[in-house]
Amino acid sequence: MGTDSGDLRGSVPTPALVVDVAAAGRNHATALSLLGDDQWLRPHFKAHKTTALAAMQGGERVRGICCQTSAEALVLAKAGFDDIMVTNQIVDAFALDELAAAARLATVSALVDDAAHVGLLEQAARKAGRGIGALIEIELGMNRCGVDPDGQGLIELAAMIRRSPELTLDGIQAYDGHVAGVADPRDRRSRAEVSAATTRRAADRLLDAGHEVRIVAGCSTAHMPFVAELGVWTDIQAGSYLLMDGAYGSYGDLPFGPALWLEATVIHASAGRFVLDGGLKHLAVDRGPPQWAGDMNAVTRLSDEHCVVAAPASGLSVGHRTRLLPRHVDPTVNLHQALWLVHAEEVKPVAVDGRRIAFG
Amino acid sequence: MGTDSGDLRGSVPTPALVVDVAAAGRNHATALSLLGDDQWLRPHFKAHKTTALAAMQGGERVRGICCQTSAEALVLAKAGFDDIMVTNQIVDAFALDELAAAARLATVSALVDDAAHVGLLEQAARKAGRGIGALIEIELGMNRCGVDPDGQGLIELAAMIRRSPELTLDGIQAYDGHVAGVADPRDRRSRAEVSAATTRRAADRLLDAGHEVRIVAGCSTAHMPFVAELGVWTDIQAGSYLLMDGAYGSYGDLPFGPALWLEATVIHASAGRFVLDGGLKHLAVDRGPPQWAGDMNAVTRLSDEHCVVAAPASGLSVGHRTRLLPRHVDPTVNLHQALWLVHAEEVKPVAVDGRRIAFG
Repeated sequence: MGTDSGDLRGSVPTPALVVDVAAAGRNHATALSLLGDDQWLRPHFKAHKTTALAAMQGGERVRGICCQTSAEALVLAKAGFDDIMVTNQIVDAFALDELAAAARLATVSALVDDAAHVGLLEQAARKAGRGIGALIEIELGMNRCGVDPDGQGLIELAAMIRRSPELTLDGIQAYDGHVAGVADPRDRRSRAEVSAATTRRAADRLLDAGHEVRIVAGCSTAHMPFVAELGVWTDIQAGSYLLMDGAYGSYGDLPFGPALWLEATVIHASAGRFVLDGGLKHLAVDRGPPQWAGDMNAVTRLSDEHCVVAAPASGLSVGHRTRLLPRHVDPTVNLHQALWLVHAEEVKPVAVDGRRIAFG
Repeated sequence: MGTDSGDLRGSVPTPALVVDVAAAGRNHATALSLLGDDQWLRPHFKAHKTTALAAMQGGERVRGICCQTSAEALVLAKAGFDDIMVTNQIVDAFALDELAAAARLATVSALVDDAAHVGLLEQAARKAGRGIGALIEIELGMNRCGVDPDGQGLIELAAMIRRSPELTLDGIQAYDGHVAGVADPRDRRSRAEVSAATTRRAADRLLDAGHEVRIVAGCSTAHMPFVAELGVWTDIQAGSYLLMDGAYGSYGDLPFGPALWLEATVIHASAGRFVLDGGLKHLAVDRGPPQWAGDMNAVTRLSDEHCVVAAPASGLSVGHRTRLLPRHVDPTVNLHQALWLVHAEEVKPVAVDGRRIAFG
């Protein structure tokens, strides 16, 4: 990705998120090549919320899809996707209605870590008139959701699900997001091995109690370099690998290349800096400011609709275009109505159609 | 705003942004009461991008409206608003087409700080078949856009605009966003007085060169406590005052109350924490994490669709609802398709209709 992109001037308005389709395809092939025996990729839709991209994430080693909200599940079901795992607890009544609507169209599962979730999923299944799969989430040290992998709650929830005529026990959700956040490859791997051992222990406890554990789901793009060696996980819920971002790119060991940038126009240039027409409403900054292709640390300020880049000799003036690399792909794509897919000479906008369905 | 909000359970899905209409109305009345002689409020649409709210920001002391993008200007023009000032430089060809479309429907102005902007605005005006107003932006130390208030460029740009048959010279844009970011009231005020002196100097230079300076635009919600004493500015571009946010609320001296919260559902509760169904895709974090009404510093982690709150004795369990106060209103509202207006017993969703128009 160079610093100027005049070739998109006639076809793409700025600020716009642009996808290099060939680079995304290479990333997908790489991800599939890293899977171990008895492992499938279950791409995470939350990363891009775009069914046109999800449709490109196929292959023999892909099993279903996962997403983070009931709204995403419904969009996927309506678009013809099947085997949709919502990697979240669904509690709000409106969200449960969305889940039921999705379950009418496709095989759907969701997470539980509390008896209340079991009851709510049962209600959704009754509303759908079809069974819903349940995975018990275990807590691996992220301090978010999940039950104690060594506690009695795991066994009790499994029994409760098995007793339900509306639900099937699909397995375990074991997501260690705190490990995905570790940049150092060796440290990350050793922590992931701890997660794997804990997950194996929880799975064994369910097996010992007479339950089947068909699915052990979890991991992330950051686990991919050693996911085969980790074993235990059957369904790898990576999402960011497809488009990549600056945060993961800085890890150094992830074998995926950037396939997404913000195309922006220079609206001001003066001594020592230029200003672009993309800001906080186009780029998520929870993992830091975006990176300018010409100098990765030159972004000094973001406002709603401005990005200030300190670059004394950029050669850019008003009207030029350039590229910013988002630091965090998932919430950045969420800011856009469309992605612009670039493939060879073709440029095509596609809707980010998995954003929350209108209230109306 | 309390910590539980069961009264919205039947009408508002979570996560949802809710507006207390009465509180917003009080904020608007307060803002109007603070204006000096020869000052008007020109509400900033970028704060909420919602024409239903902009329609409530009227009054005798209100003059037109301002916005930050051509897309917002077009939405406003289509909704029947007039005297629309785009407080930004418009450069991209698609954006200029939007500006021209807005100019066909309403009186429109935009900023210039470079000869290139003058030429581009002229093209847009010719496309619209109607004149466009131009304000010269001066640089007050924010290090973003604008010309040197003491330099020759200011005078040259004014002459260039005056020579153009398509443009009118409306005045000066003088926005000191770096001052708006100063929390300490005394420090903020003394810096704003420096901005005012610089702005007065630039205006006088234009007057001396034979130009009229009808509008001096700028300031922010953070300037409101002393905006009358500052003088010089005619059009006060405050936006956040209407709904307020945690960042401005922490200043202590701003006479506006919170009128916006994220309604969220507890999806997990365990020892020491609970987890809500709103995260990075519902709350902007560029000025810090949201604040939970029960303990303003208890939010420990945000993921795409989760907010973890460390609160050992919250009494909240799965299915309860509670409220988060966004830290930065503008990019937070930008994440939502709808706002839920609560007024007395009535709850009504309205579209955040100023978000970028679809690419199609």
